[in-house]
Amino acid sequence: MKLQVTQENLNRALGSVARVANTRNALPILANVLIKTSNNRLSLSATNLDIAITHYIGAKVSEEGSITVPARLMQDFISSLPSGVINLELKETKLSITTDQYQSTVNGIMADDFPVMPAITSGQSWTVPGALLKKTLQQVVFAASNDETRPVLTAVLLHTSNGALYMAATDSYRLAERQLNNNTEDVRLLVPATAMQDLLRIIGDGADAVQVTHDDQQILFQVGDVELVTRLVEGKYPDYQKLIPSTFATSATLKRADFVNVTKVSSLFARESAGSITIEVDEAAQSLSIRSVASQLGENTAQAEAKATGSASITLNSKYLLDALNALGGDEVTFGFNGKLEATLLTDAANDDYKHVIMPLKG
Amino acid sequence: MKLQVTQENLNRALGSVARVANTRNALPILANVLIKTSNNRLSLSATNLDIAITHYIGAKVSEEGSITVPARLMQDFISSLPSGVINLELKETKLSITTDQYQSTVNGIMADDFPVMPAITSGQSWTVPGALLKKTLQQVVFAASNDETRPVLTAVLLHTSNGALYMAATDSYRLAERQLNNNTEDVRLLVPATAMQDLLRIIGDGADAVQVTHDDQQILFQVGDVELVTRLVEGKYPDYQKLIPSTFATSATLKRADFVNVTKVSSLFARESAGSITIEVDEAAQSLSIRSVASQLGENTAQAEAKATGSASITLNSKYLLDALNALGGDEVTFGFNGKLEATLLTDAANDDYKHVIMPLKG
Repeated sequence: MKLQVTQENLNRALGSVARVANTRNALPILANVLIKTSNNRLSLSATNLDIAITHYIGAKVSEEGSITVPARLMQDFISSLPSGVINLELKETKLSITTDQYQSTVNGIMADDFPVMPAITSGQSWTVPGALLKKTLQQVVFAASNDETRPVLTAVLLHTSNGALYMAATDSYRLAERQLNNNTEDVRLLVPATAMQDLLRIIGDGADAVQVTHDDQQILFQVGDVELVTRLVEGKYPDYQKLIPSTFATSATLKRADFVNVTKVSSLFARESAGSITIEVDEAAQSLSIRSVASQLGENTAQAEAKATGSASITLNSKYLLDALNALGGDEVTFGFNGKLEATLLTDAANDDYKHVIMPLKG
Repeated sequence: MKLQVTQENLNRALGSVARVANTRNALPILANVLIKTSNNRLSLSATNLDIAITHYIGAKVSEEGSITVPARLMQDFISSLPSGVINLELKETKLSITTDQYQSTVNGIMADDFPVMPAITSGQSWTVPGALLKKTLQQVVFAASNDETRPVLTAVLLHTSNGALYMAATDSYRLAERQLNNNTEDVRLLVPATAMQDLLRIIGDGADAVQVTHDDQQILFQVGDVELVTRLVEGKYPDYQKLIPSTFATSATLKRADFVNVTKVSSLFARESAGSITIEVDEAAQSLSIRSVASQLGENTAQAEAKATGSASITLNSKYLLDALNALGGDEVTFGFNGKLEATLLTDAANDDYKHVIMPLKG
């Protein structure tokens, strides 16, 4: 293998893939990135056996070949080099990396030993606008669970309902759902939330359409020159849509920034009580106020103006409330609830494409 | 106690003092900040028994008084509030804090129990320009030791020599010294490096002259409306000046940015060897090159142009070298050394007010 590549391209590709490589794995080669020529392109790949990411870049190849090298060293090293041309040349398993100022040799492991994810040969394929997918991932993925004892809840559900594509995630304490574009394909897929976090990092701000292809076992996302493939999670996802309330005894519409501020201040007094805060909506006062009590430190009441319908109070976890308010993103939010133990709903006051449910705490 | 104060002033004062308060201390009141009125001023103080910081701010006081309240909660809370007027009112040991939107009660501990550092009644006093003191602290303090078994090395030495004031610190592997202004007072003081880090945070960028006052046991720094007092360290500081080399068999002068780059890249290959890198100065090639070898991962040689006198090589810790290059700050640096086990010196090529010594590793 012998080639020339720019520092900018090599650095960008390592930035996409190196995070998936992991030195804590039992298999040493999984800490490596696979570098492989193909005509005048170079592919860089890394995998943890569940997720694989490949980034293609242009290169001036004079001898074809492939090698795997330690991902972290390679990323740190290439990102430290000045911009310009880098020469790569393989001698047995040693990769020589040279520029005007630097001469390095990195010890590799033969590419033959690198595990490759099976290809998706016959599957459905559709596209999602990049910016919409990115926004949806930001609003939904964090609501998935980290608890490996219920694997389906560590996944994000991607499914069609009445001709529209939805993404949803829940950890059973909160639930986020967003409608994406219309979709003629009928799908119901459980995609690991960790893979979706990797996908989020890959989708740039000016991303074009993302091509999605899947079979029964795997799903492939193609974002420009980057491919991410991940195994699907098996199991039956809860019928979450029936948990989303649609009518409310009490509701308040207020500026999102105000709601964030009063929640943040209140949460400081809720550290002793694991984030427990009590929200009171008052129709007569047209206000939403939050009360939190720290037996040791003191107590706080914070108030914001709101368009209120009904008067009642409910106790929530302040962290979940802040997560939801940050995900919402619009100017005004509507917060609705019913009984003290029933699901609450947060939506953008202007449209309800995105729904965020939080279960109350026992007050 | 009853008063009005602006959120901006209260927040600024808490920012100066709260860091010294510590919840891990055996004495609960040391996690608190003392708030005390004095005519139309409010003082906020915190102490860890070794260091005390007091910040004075303007306030509209209608009833005099004092109280101590949890520093961290107070800082987090006040910094979360919108700018504008805050009302403080003490009822027994409960401090009520109110704005238009927020009503809080913070539980305090009586001010009588708060430990006060003894006043410096008869001592010497002199001034140092704020910007010069700040720069000096940035260049010197990090070279002090963290090792409590040799207390004198955890201090910074502030001393006069031939009518000039110097600050110096060493952990016995490296040494930093800077000349400050001329000083008619004859001083030799060991100031805890941790207190100097706090002082560094307090000195703003546009700081005026800093007033320094000391007796045998304590030193007081007055920076605008902030006072920092710290106990002095007892003991005999090593006669460090004789360790600074003044003639060199080999030396190189090069762009500081180049030296930083080649050191950074080389350090990536020096992780296995605890940061050990070998610097070679070559008079014939007019270059400085750095070689590092990681037996597992590979090896690297990085080269920079230099005005070189003499040809030889020496092995240093890359972290210490980067710390020194960052502290130097000028465009060009001069690096000089003699035998393989003798002290090396780094200075700004344009002036030698600041001297940084690094002891070599056994290559």
